[in-house]
Amino acid sequence: MSEAPREIEALIDLMARIPGLGPRSARRAVLHLIKRRGALLSPLGQAMLAVAETARECLNCGNVGTTDICDICNAEKRATGEICVVEDVADLWAMERSGVFRGRYHVLGGTLSALDAVGPEELRIPRLISRLKTESIEEVILALNATVDGQTTAHYIADQIGDGVRVTSLAQGVPIGGELDYLDDGTISAALRARKSF
Amino acid sequence: MSEAPREIEALIDLMARIPGLGPRSARRAVLHLIKRRGALLSPLGQAMLAVAETARECLNCGNVGTTDICDICNAEKRATGEICVVEDVADLWAMERSGVFRGRYHVLGGTLSALDAVGPEELRIPRLISRLKTESIEEVILALNATVDGQTTAHYIADQIGDGVRVTSLAQGVPIGGELDYLDDGTISAALRARKSF
Repeated sequence: MSEAPREIEALIDLMARIPGLGPRSARRAVLHLIKRRGALLSPLGQAMLAVAETARECLNCGNVGTTDICDICNAEKRATGEICVVEDVADLWAMERSGVFRGRYHVLGGTLSALDAVGPEELRIPRLISRLKTESIEEVILALNATVDGQTTAHYIADQIGDGVRVTSLAQGVPIGGELDYLDDGTISAALRARKSF
Repeated sequence: MSEAPREIEALIDLMARIPGLGPRSARRAVLHLIKRRGALLSPLGQAMLAVAETARECLNCGNVGTTDICDICNAEKRATGEICVVEDVADLWAMERSGVFRGRYHVLGGTLSALDAVGPEELRIPRLISRLKTESIEEVILALNATVDGQTTAHYIADQIGDGVRVTSLAQGVPIGGELDYLDDGTISAALRARKSF
């Protein structure tokens, strides 16, 4: 397929590797960007190079930032003695958007998976255990996804932490605004088991 | 929302303006790109700047390329006396992929639209008319989309061309591999009206 010039084909091929875009939508996106090459394509290219240059993972928690230690780990007021353990940075951002949690995070970078040969070492779990002492942690909140791998990982981490530190997990139940008719059976039965006095 | 550093937020905002990505998928895409910043993010940024620098519209036909006159308009063997009129460069690429048409193109850049105040001047229609003489065109193939605006535009162009040049349009009917049960009524009735001896 060489209907477009080499430079443009090269861009389409790279764009098609962005999650959410396939070969077809990459072609449409590139044409859209070329039409707006001054207002969008150039700034986007520059922003990408800037991020490629500066982005790094926090050496302490695995969050993405532009410094070796991220802003959250650097913030003294977030040393609340609580660590919220999440799978990915996207989950950390979701927690931050809710604005409720004021402690620090630990980004695992995935879940344990026998199938994909992901063990504790790949997931910054040893780093989490060592943080418990150095940061005087009193509570670890396991905010992992409610999937089989997520829950397996949560159980493994809870085992590793042992006594002396409180280990909690997010409540499971009916989402706010959720309609029972649209919920899966697992959510309904979890919400029923965890029912509370009104 | 300032859960990510400024540079990363700026990239997310720009990514969200790519057609096919929204704010949420832009965030996921940026995290994916940051994980692959050497293998994907840097090359993508460089490819974007290269295209922003070199891409331009062919002064003759409106195709996208890296030269003032595109490769197709420059190719002597494509001076077949036929011009295929398409709405967008994406349509030109689709025609080229089929590999059947050997003439030149004319990219309108849209369709006439009273609602969006798009007139003939915005669509390179005068340029098409002037090409008919200078390139000794014998046939204009209207390959516009089978939408109301596309067909309105096709009728307008056919009127402008007048006598002396053959004006044709793509056949309408059942797509190859198409199942009648899944086709809309309009396509079935068009295919029936244009039926031919077996």
